Amino acid sequence: MSTRRGDAVKFARDHMDEYLSSLKKLVEIPSISTFPENQNDIQRAASELAYQMEMAGMQNVKIIPTQGHPVVYGEDLSAGPEKPVVLVYGHYDVQPVDPLELWETPPFEPQVKGDYLVGRGTSDMKGQVLAALSAYHAIRKTQEIPVNVKFVVEGEEEIGSPHFRAFVEKHVDLLKSDISLNPDAGMMAPHLPTIVYALRGLAFFELLVYGPSHDLHSGVFGGVIHNPAQVLCEFIAGLHDQNGTVTLPGFYDRVKPLPDWEKQELSRLPLGEEVLLEQTGAPALWGESEFNFAERIGARPTLEVNGLYSGFIGQGSKTIIPAYAMAKISCRLVPEQNPHEVHQQFLQHLKNVMPPTVRWELKYLGGGNPCMTDIRHPANQALASALETVWGIRPVYKREGGSVPVVGDFKNFLGIESILTGFGLPDDRIHSPNEHLHLPTWKKGIEALIHFFFNLAEQEGLKH
Amino acid sequence: MSTRRGDAVKFARDHMDEYLSSLKKLVEIPSISTFPENQNDIQRAASELAYQMEMAGMQNVKIIPTQGHPVVYGEDLSAGPEKPVVLVYGHYDVQPVDPLELWETPPFEPQVKGDYLVGRGTSDMKGQVLAALSAYHAIRKTQEIPVNVKFVVEGEEEIGSPHFRAFVEKHVDLLKSDISLNPDAGMMAPHLPTIVYALRGLAFFELLVYGPSHDLHSGVFGGVIHNPAQVLCEFIAGLHDQNGTVTLPGFYDRVKPLPDWEKQELSRLPLGEEVLLEQTGAPALWGESEFNFAERIGARPTLEVNGLYSGFIGQGSKTIIPAYAMAKISCRLVPEQNPHEVHQQFLQHLKNVMPPTVRWELKYLGGGNPCMTDIRHPANQALASALETVWGIRPVYKREGGSVPVVGDFKNFLGIESILTGFGLPDDRIHSPNEHLHLPTWKKGIEALIHFFFNLAEQEGLKH
Repeated sequence: MSTRRGDAVKFARDHMDEYLSSLKKLVEIPSISTFPENQNDIQRAASELAYQMEMAGMQNVKIIPTQGHPVVYGEDLSAGPEKPVVLVYGHYDVQPVDPLELWETPPFEPQVKGDYLVGRGTSDMKGQVLAALSAYHAIRKTQEIPVNVKFVVEGEEEIGSPHFRAFVEKHVDLLKSDISLNPDAGMMAPHLPTIVYALRGLAFFELLVYGPSHDLHSGVFGGVIHNPAQVLCEFIAGLHDQNGTVTLPGFYDRVKPLPDWEKQELSRLPLGEEVLLEQTGAPALWGESEFNFAERIGARPTLEVNGLYSGFIGQGSKTIIPAYAMAKISCRLVPEQNPHEVHQQFLQHLKNVMPPTVRWELKYLGGGNPCMTDIRHPANQALASALETVWGIRPVYKREGGSVPVVGDFKNFLGIESILTGFGLPDDRIHSPNEHLHLPTWKKGIEALIHFFFNLAEQEGLKH
Repeated sequence: MSTRRGDAVKFARDHMDEYLSSLKKLVEIPSISTFPENQNDIQRAASELAYQMEMAGMQNVKIIPTQGHPVVYGEDLSAGPEKPVVLVYGHYDVQPVDPLELWETPPFEPQVKGDYLVGRGTSDMKGQVLAALSAYHAIRKTQEIPVNVKFVVEGEEEIGSPHFRAFVEKHVDLLKSDISLNPDAGMMAPHLPTIVYALRGLAFFELLVYGPSHDLHSGVFGGVIHNPAQVLCEFIAGLHDQNGTVTLPGFYDRVKPLPDWEKQELSRLPLGEEVLLEQTGAPALWGESEFNFAERIGARPTLEVNGLYSGFIGQGSKTIIPAYAMAKISCRLVPEQNPHEVHQQFLQHLKNVMPPTVRWELKYLGGGNPCMTDIRHPANQALASALETVWGIRPVYKREGGSVPVVGDFKNFLGIESILTGFGLPDDRIHSPNEHLHLPTWKKGIEALIHFFFNLAEQEGLKH
């Protein structure tokens, strides 16, 4: 270990108690973004975070108002214009705590229990934000920083970041960077440092099938009127084959087969049948038999029925032919699919197959592009090397099945890639009672981020 | 026309204003069975009807309490034990009147407008009950009655007759008869007297398909978990073929092909495409192409989705794999199908086709057997002849698509057939604002029922 990074790592190790205290202070503030009654706590959490950024040595720290909850910003550009700028993304808001009675300790009175710090937001993601801030602090207190850093920490992630895109668009100059680090993605297991290099996109639809102008008596008209609920079911049934492959024409046109190296990387992920059955409670797994679980979740597009409604759904019976039927249908997309093209495919398919006995309407409710960062990208290499230094094992590479809108926003407005990692674990109970943070992993994470900042400074080809 | 029946018809013609006044008095009472606040009106309507029965000359008139609204009963057995007994069924309760603002005249202030009497319950079915009572009155006031009659008029038909079955079971001796006349079935058109000789049965199910133990994030698990909403849709899609024929194995095993004479009778029904499109507002008709509309509605069994639910059905989008999906499914059955056998067919089919990736549950929510009275039954012949005498045209024979539970109850507990007719018209707006009764048709109906009672007395083979 070079002396410079060695000094920072030693400093961090000597100050872990202090970093933990700072994290507890932040966790003590119930910054639940969804409840109006926590508005004041949101402000307090933003202030506390801004204060900690100041104390760590950052400049230009400010709490920037939005149409919703404020964004906390800080920077340290003292590495100079020759060095890259890394933009650390995070959020300081948290999920609600219901059901409160299931918490073993109060959610906003963080306590160390064995290897864990228990409390709402410890893992998701105040702990992750403070890991990055602590890594910065440890370097800053021991030497000149090797790369420029910016922190941008929003307060609305848990409610879908309704104002963050507009914020990014408005503050392009302030946020200008060469790469973004998003530590909200977590690890697959304590011994498996993880890099997320791809995210699925999304296209969300509402399909309405209209039959008669009003609910009909099924005795009086059953047999001569096409039931729109039946038509909807028949349409949906035609969207998958027996193998679970989507049959919407054109859907896979842009989906590339996985190269062998990527298949090999994905096969390292501990996504076994037993784990998935336990996490879901499903009676059995399902899906495209020619792909393994990690590929099905991360590297294959899917089509899901998210909601169904028609007619009478109360207790008991009502013998009607419903006037209409509705389905919410969404697709998870992989590179190089895009939601607008899928929308067109849906429209065309409906035109082709819907019978003249019903009318239909397809509403496009939104979507986002899939994202992928080359795992050979210099920043990914810097991160991979940092993780390997600390854990002693090459990190696993994961394609995330979900979508992280901020990654697309940074790509669109700032022109930068995001690299995703984090030090939360699958059993951290985020969004649930007794959320906790595994402290040994968190401490390793702080060390790894110190290495990451140094590694970044040494990478070629990162500066825009 | 024989003198005896001629006297009664003349008497009726001379007293039509009186019969209309009696009907108005009954219509003035808002006997809405579904609202607790009309409880008192229900009692008043029962009393008024009992009074009118007494005045007409019936004996043993009584208002019999049930667990719900009371039943009005009256009889005249003066024709003697050698003559048959006809049991006239009716109901004195009515539907609610909302939306009140769409009524052109107050619903419970019956007014004659041209050929119509306007008011709630005029057609459904206070007018029909009084047509039968007036026919009885006209005979009774001119001579000895030719057949024994019993009237049983309930107060809960519009809320599904929840206590009438128990009432029939409890009063088997009181209701003992040879045939029942049910004048609640109406006519196809003013010039087309109609006899309903068959009713479809019903089997009602709720099907639940369970997938994961809780709603899952479709990004995190989409691709490896079978979506229960998709599975439900695929199951439903497999219940019909392209032609609209039900594909549930065994469903048609007991369905007999229609004999030519019956096809011919049904082809006389004015069930044209234009009429059906106008009544339903559907963009096009549908169904088994080898059967005409009347056959599809009355003589063919059907399977309908009455309701669908799964996952998220609010505004906007929520990217979940739902934990479960539900469908309400009912079948209209024709002779000789029965609901319990169809239930078994469903269970067997589910066992055969449902994948092991989901769990399922089928709830049987109830049903009833189909009914059919031979159109050559003496009572049907008595009615047909009566209708033809008055209208100068042979009546049309209709298979009703819906179910009338009282017909099955009379069959089960009293061992008697029902014959169904009536003098309401399709555009009477029953259950809707501005319900009305076509008075020329109603008056013809009174005359026809006079002939019916005389014809019954002359039929052989009716007496049990």
